[in-house]
Amino acid sequence: MTIQLYDTTLRDGTQGEGVNFSSGDKLRIARKLDELGVHYIEGGWPGSNPKDMDFFTRAQAELDLQQAKIAAFGSTRKAHTPVQQDAQVRMLLDTGTEVVTIFGKTWDLHVFDVLRTTLDENEAMIYDTVAYLKENGKEVIYDAEHFFDGYRADPDYAIRTLQAAVRGGAACIVLADTNGGSMPWDIERIMGELRAAGITTPLGIHTHNDSEVGVANALAGVRAGAVHVQGTINGYGERCGNSNLLSIIANLNLKMGIQAVQPEQLQRLTAVANYVSELANLAPDDHAAYVGRSAFAHKGGVHVNAVVKNVNSYQHIDPALVGNEMRVVVSDLSGKDNIAVKREQLGLLGITREQERTVLGQIKEMEHQGYAFEAADASVELLLRRTQPDYAPPFQMIDFTTNVDYRQGRGLFSEATVKVRIEGEIFHEVAEGNGPVNALNLALRKALERFYPRLESVHLSDYKVRILDTHMATAATTRVLISFRDGKRTWSTVGASANIIEASWQALADGLEYALLNGESGSQ
Amino acid sequence: MTIQLYDTTLRDGTQGEGVNFSSGDKLRIARKLDELGVHYIEGGWPGSNPKDMDFFTRAQAELDLQQAKIAAFGSTRKAHTPVQQDAQVRMLLDTGTEVVTIFGKTWDLHVFDVLRTTLDENEAMIYDTVAYLKENGKEVIYDAEHFFDGYRADPDYAIRTLQAAVRGGAACIVLADTNGGSMPWDIERIMGELRAAGITTPLGIHTHNDSEVGVANALAGVRAGAVHVQGTINGYGERCGNSNLLSIIANLNLKMGIQAVQPEQLQRLTAVANYVSELANLAPDDHAAYVGRSAFAHKGGVHVNAVVKNVNSYQHIDPALVGNEMRVVVSDLSGKDNIAVKREQLGLLGITREQERTVLGQIKEMEHQGYAFEAADASVELLLRRTQPDYAPPFQMIDFTTNVDYRQGRGLFSEATVKVRIEGEIFHEVAEGNGPVNALNLALRKALERFYPRLESVHLSDYKVRILDTHMATAATTRVLISFRDGKRTWSTVGASANIIEASWQALADGLEYALLNGESGSQ
Repeated sequence: MTIQLYDTTLRDGTQGEGVNFSSGDKLRIARKLDELGVHYIEGGWPGSNPKDMDFFTRAQAELDLQQAKIAAFGSTRKAHTPVQQDAQVRMLLDTGTEVVTIFGKTWDLHVFDVLRTTLDENEAMIYDTVAYLKENGKEVIYDAEHFFDGYRADPDYAIRTLQAAVRGGAACIVLADTNGGSMPWDIERIMGELRAAGITTPLGIHTHNDSEVGVANALAGVRAGAVHVQGTINGYGERCGNSNLLSIIANLNLKMGIQAVQPEQLQRLTAVANYVSELANLAPDDHAAYVGRSAFAHKGGVHVNAVVKNVNSYQHIDPALVGNEMRVVVSDLSGKDNIAVKREQLGLLGITREQERTVLGQIKEMEHQGYAFEAADASVELLLRRTQPDYAPPFQMIDFTTNVDYRQGRGLFSEATVKVRIEGEIFHEVAEGNGPVNALNLALRKALERFYPRLESVHLSDYKVRILDTHMATAATTRVLISFRDGKRTWSTVGASANIIEASWQALADGLEYALLNGESGSQ
Repeated sequence: MTIQLYDTTLRDGTQGEGVNFSSGDKLRIARKLDELGVHYIEGGWPGSNPKDMDFFTRAQAELDLQQAKIAAFGSTRKAHTPVQQDAQVRMLLDTGTEVVTIFGKTWDLHVFDVLRTTLDENEAMIYDTVAYLKENGKEVIYDAEHFFDGYRADPDYAIRTLQAAVRGGAACIVLADTNGGSMPWDIERIMGELRAAGITTPLGIHTHNDSEVGVANALAGVRAGAVHVQGTINGYGERCGNSNLLSIIANLNLKMGIQAVQPEQLQRLTAVANYVSELANLAPDDHAAYVGRSAFAHKGGVHVNAVVKNVNSYQHIDPALVGNEMRVVVSDLSGKDNIAVKREQLGLLGITREQERTVLGQIKEMEHQGYAFEAADASVELLLRRTQPDYAPPFQMIDFTTNVDYRQGRGLFSEATVKVRIEGEIFHEVAEGNGPVNALNLALRKALERFYPRLESVHLSDYKVRILDTHMATAATTRVLISFRDGKRTWSTVGASANIIEASWQALADGLEYALLNGESGSQ
């Protein structure tokens, strides 16, 4: 069985709040999607967004795809307008793509209340537009918007609209659950009835996640005969998002025995998820199925103990199949197995069982004080490395100060100073920031970058503060978690103190020490 | 048809990375779950976590639930240990709960590789533990861990383990897809076969989201005859999370015609989602189905236009049914009605509609900057009072400074100064603290208490910090929420700024201003 994968991240995905891509980003994503084994890449709607035409022009000139075809997206012609004279339809031809996808109305409510036209005219709009694009040499995919809602409202009319697209010469009819309100069994039942009504054109399925069953709905569509399935990377999209194409691919390949992509391509799944979230500048979802950082993480002592005994006892697939990895989370809930697994992953072979126990004791004591190591891999690695007699820290902190001043009429001012020792030399720096921690970060970077210019590529990607025992109010312990990235890797560190500045300092210093340990070569 | 809702946020949910609740938080969440209409609340595993016993003790003393029963969670007895002598089982009795849920092994792989015992002994462990707890007067729920994986590996043995629990007297047999690898059709097929094998005890379903079909799997279980369904609020849980009980409830009530909760309870859905994420100190998922801030938000021009013409054209349900709302543009809280209600509650009759609109505009603008007034009643009241021409603030802030110094050998030092004007007089004070905010609080109190000694009875009871836009790292906006009490009342205020000191200052100053306005009599 062959399934055509149709990605709409670059069009429907950008309807999601906060999702915006430049044309350059779109080209880069299109290349990744091609490598992943996607068959169609919907590039945009030239009629609704002038930037999208730029993408199609550049795609033709610059992209050299192995397998994927670029599709332009648009709507049926306007009511009572000859299709040849419809500007939006002409733009679709101007994109020069091999494939054009157009959406039309299935639901009578939309025909009356949104288009404000007649059922017959809507049918003519669908037929005319599909036929015209087909005559102009396009492979035409017809998206039946609100198909399932429309079918529930008036099944006969819903089928008439599909038949108009079939007569026009559509290569594929895509059934869309645009509002995301259908249940998987609705999808299966209605698609079964559709077959019985004699539609023989290949069917596709397009679902949304408003009922948190978007992926299940897409799979239900495939089980009911769809040979074309649409979705977006990471499930980006309006409201609750489109169905997540990555989970759909993994489930098709690993759970349904349908080779939607090649096994080598499946191994790119996690990398594609991270790449697209990086370009979208959205934090990756750690808990995402298959590709999340925590998708194969084990925290509970019972689970970790079992995983050590048999790796398959608490994971549904081998994470390597989707390019992810098992991760053991270290926390006070967890026993010595967690540390041992961690040590092996890091290849720290010099560490003895004795030192391992010491680190575990340290972790328990520090967690008691308010640290939390489960999300702070880099801090755990540093604790392990520091047990090694030959470990030489890349810098040593001597002093720091922060100052926040508010003076009536002059406003707010934040400054920090830092004094560090690097290979015997003292670096003493000062910086201003928009808050005390920001100033401290800038001052520390100023000091370290004099000696380690490669730290310039290291960025803080996340800063979280949690007040523990909040009922202790401003005297409570503060826990700070900071995430860093350097373009290749991401890592996280933790600090804890009754003083938020000190807690932030600890996490900052650990994160930069880690960056320097794992850099490509020595200093400078 | 009746469905029993079983929440495991407080037990399985806390296996999620970054999810930690104090006993006090757990009690508060239990009350909310009861109001929502949940039937069972799993409170923890006393054998694995000493903190959990504290919850059960306090739950008995302090909770007065309308409907929900508290369940203690644990495992079957150890291999080759008489059940009466098993310390973990005895702890379950010690919790004093009416309901005990125990999990046992279904999957032969786990019996051999994890328990390292025989199939017969595992069966005896299940029977003995269920029977013993039942003899001791407990309602026993049996969780068949890895049921679906176990059934696929050896259906006969999997059924034998369930029969052992039935013989022991289990009130309900819960089929768990512990690794989250099953597909909805697997669940339906296997449960159908189970019925055919003659299991007549009520069945439950417990699913995880590793294949991004957790909610669909729970619903498939209900369609196949489960009358008990487990999940967690917001889908918190290990790896990719448990199935999201909120989406399950909404789908049962609104899509399957099963009244799992009353319509008035369903309207609490969004509030419960936000409340639990607030206590977990995890950012709410804006795109969460039904309850997310973006779940009924419209960005695309076409959609917004259509929604204006017919509100149902692009939404699958009326958001009010789940206590959510449609949102067309980014920002804002829910309108002037809230303000009007607030004004009436406060008896601020002098406030005009015009002033009300001004305050609403201020709130919208401030929320856009990062404030959140939902949990900061006192700040809202101050905004309203400050519109009154005769309002005289009890003090005015002139300057403040904070200093944090770390000097090698001398350690850490935090100091703050505050200058305020009270009835024309200047008070300038300095204090040390264990952190900059603590020092600022002490300095401010020192200044104010000279004039208003009754402030001595006002205490800070809670201090919460949240970094918004955490990907902006240390340059992100910080929101501070502070709660106060004076022995009679409690109130909360909010501050927001890129500078945590300033945000804290705002919330502190508002809280003390509020205390002075609502004191018993005039100053001193």
